[in-house]
Amino acid sequence: MDHIPLTLADLEQARARIAAAVLATPLWLNDVLSRDFGVPIHFKLENLQPTGSFKLRGATHKIDRLLASTGAGGAGRSAATLRGVIAASAGNHAQGVARAARAQGLPATVVMPVAASLTKIEACRGLGAEVILAGANLEEARALAEVLAGERGLEFVHPYDDWQIIAGQASVGLEIIEALPTASLVVVPLGGGGLLSGVALAIKLQRPDVRVVGVQTETVAPFRRFLEDGSLEVVSPSAHTIADGIKVKAPGVLTRQVIARHVDAIVTVDDNAIAEAMVCLLERTRTIGEGAGVVALAALLKGKVVPRPDDCVVVLVSGGNADMTLVGRSIDYGLASSGRLMSLAVRVADTPGRLAALLGVVAEHGMNVRHVEHRRGELHVPVGMTEIILQIETRDFPHQRELLDHFAAQGLDARNLIEAA
Amino acid sequence: MDHIPLTLADLEQARARIAAAVLATPLWLNDVLSRDFGVPIHFKLENLQPTGSFKLRGATHKIDRLLASTGAGGAGRSAATLRGVIAASAGNHAQGVARAARAQGLPATVVMPVAASLTKIEACRGLGAEVILAGANLEEARALAEVLAGERGLEFVHPYDDWQIIAGQASVGLEIIEALPTASLVVVPLGGGGLLSGVALAIKLQRPDVRVVGVQTETVAPFRRFLEDGSLEVVSPSAHTIADGIKVKAPGVLTRQVIARHVDAIVTVDDNAIAEAMVCLLERTRTIGEGAGVVALAALLKGKVVPRPDDCVVVLVSGGNADMTLVGRSIDYGLASSGRLMSLAVRVADTPGRLAALLGVVAEHGMNVRHVEHRRGELHVPVGMTEIILQIETRDFPHQRELLDHFAAQGLDARNLIEAA
Repeated sequence: MDHIPLTLADLEQARARIAAAVLATPLWLNDVLSRDFGVPIHFKLENLQPTGSFKLRGATHKIDRLLASTGAGGAGRSAATLRGVIAASAGNHAQGVARAARAQGLPATVVMPVAASLTKIEACRGLGAEVILAGANLEEARALAEVLAGERGLEFVHPYDDWQIIAGQASVGLEIIEALPTASLVVVPLGGGGLLSGVALAIKLQRPDVRVVGVQTETVAPFRRFLEDGSLEVVSPSAHTIADGIKVKAPGVLTRQVIARHVDAIVTVDDNAIAEAMVCLLERTRTIGEGAGVVALAALLKGKVVPRPDDCVVVLVSGGNADMTLVGRSIDYGLASSGRLMSLAVRVADTPGRLAALLGVVAEHGMNVRHVEHRRGELHVPVGMTEIILQIETRDFPHQRELLDHFAAQGLDARNLIEAA
Repeated sequence: MDHIPLTLADLEQARARIAAAVLATPLWLNDVLSRDFGVPIHFKLENLQPTGSFKLRGATHKIDRLLASTGAGGAGRSAATLRGVIAASAGNHAQGVARAARAQGLPATVVMPVAASLTKIEACRGLGAEVILAGANLEEARALAEVLAGERGLEFVHPYDDWQIIAGQASVGLEIIEALPTASLVVVPLGGGGLLSGVALAIKLQRPDVRVVGVQTETVAPFRRFLEDGSLEVVSPSAHTIADGIKVKAPGVLTRQVIARHVDAIVTVDDNAIAEAMVCLLERTRTIGEGAGVVALAALLKGKVVPRPDDCVVVLVSGGNADMTLVGRSIDYGLASSGRLMSLAVRVADTPGRLAALLGVVAEHGMNVRHVEHRRGELHVPVGMTEIILQIETRDFPHQRELLDHFAAQGLDARNLIEAA
């Protein structure tokens, strides 16, 4: 199974072919993280790519190659037979294919699961694609797309398991090494493996000393032990993660060859870590990363990837198409799990002035109140007592502890609702 | 009052002095907006500046000049007398001064109002500044900072009304004209006027044909009629806006000279428009703009600034330090005011299956449900009836209308809670 047909020259060519259509995204040193970790930490911000993710690179390259193969010097297929492209995706790949096709004046069809978010559906339509809503999940949508490809004479564009796609994604790696020759550790999100295998190839073919690490989400981690024993973990059909962009249960056959040969380590992060990383990215770069986009940052923040004292680190942020209606919730989740948002329930006697006194204590601790709720007459609250629910902005967990200790010293029954949950 | 001492050469020098410390931020064409408006629309993304706003530019330049004037060839002040700098700010200026001072190894003190957000306080401390929390508002904090400047022998760094600050902010304008010589309309947020006057000078001194427009927030718009009749509107002390970064009630004396001479128009936008612009920026660029940062975009989206058919537009996004705990709320606000989030109350008979039927109708309309609440036993709901509160993601206002019409046709009492509010 072990033939990788891509050379460094192939990757350079692919990069040149797509240069006009994609953005050479920023690679920025972040001072705060660099100070915290004691080594330079850079972000490669693919979330700033038009369409909001690296997927545009591979899709652009694939379509370029499809068009080239239908040309006069092509491999026998006549131009008339390339009627358009079709893809199945709930988001980023669909937008990448739609935009890449439009740039070439080629019709694009995308099959999206019926539950796809309105925003993403509208984004694909806005890019001129025909959107077909079908299938309860991505696997069903993909099956339909393959059927339609045959029926309508369209080329099916695979999201990752295709050498031309991999060559396109590799341009991210080429840009990293070119902009930052001192890079020594590159951390990359891993779903189907298109991005990771492209980046690993681009880097290792010129700089085998640079370490490349892939990051999966805890609940969907088929590659978990792959580098140790070659096994692929079976993912539970009901697996859930906020990193839906890398919720890929069937790793690529081609991508796994590259990963086996060129990737140094694979680690996993859980949803809490991902939500914290979203908030960290927002605060450090003022940019949105989607769940899948920030897993590499999460791995760094959680110590799953530990830089050496002389490392120069690149954290790849692969995409930013977080559903706007979910961003707020993720922020709260991340704030809560990093100790900056606390929900607590305090029981006090139901007499005038108790709420005011409570809020006075909160203010003395330098905390901002976001939400107050007053409950009584519920089964779990004794008659004569009131339960007050406070949502408070805090500095960190010790800061929260201070307040709870203060209440305890006053003999008040105060529970941290988030810890309890 | 009418002497502007800055030449184009001065601005170029200022830019060169700060080049190593600030980021030449991206100036990116946005395809979706360009298509919608029929002219090229570019974003100048100062929200991606380290410290999250353009303020770093002016602060860096001011501190550079303070240090130069204490040097051997300086204007008589000895190096020993420059003990440090002090500023008053609730956010962006404080961070800009803190970072610029640290880069020069100079102590920085920032006075922040007691209600300043924890995040911003921590950001300034993280940049090595001494943070003093004092004053109920910015005016009180500033008065204290000026007193402390005298007592401690520190240089007070004004947030905008200083020629060296203006010269620093002008670098934004120089970058725009250099990167995009075809620019013909530049739209800029306006608070105290440091950014607008710097940008206007940089542009008009070389390209008087380019139109420069300033944008204020509706409730804090001292410049509203300034270009027509020279008057400055008195701002209500209780004025509120989500664009707190440009909530400046006392426009600069220096900045207004530049604005009078070099700015073509001043327009205002309200908080609804600002929240929509925040969502638009997020979706189009995956970057966060704070309220004040996106007023120029809001003016474009709301038709307050109308491009000519041959225009090449630059929308300046001045900053991105939105408080994380507020971003989620702003997103919902923006989604609701652009017709993509609806809260409605429907009264149905309190019998089994009614909620399921209701949700079926919502699904048939292709809407996602975000939140469901079931109320009964409240005074305004007749006995035997239940009120169901639905929060639903919709495509636009006509889409919302469809659902309400459907309920009406079924004889159901359905109210849009957001319209009602």
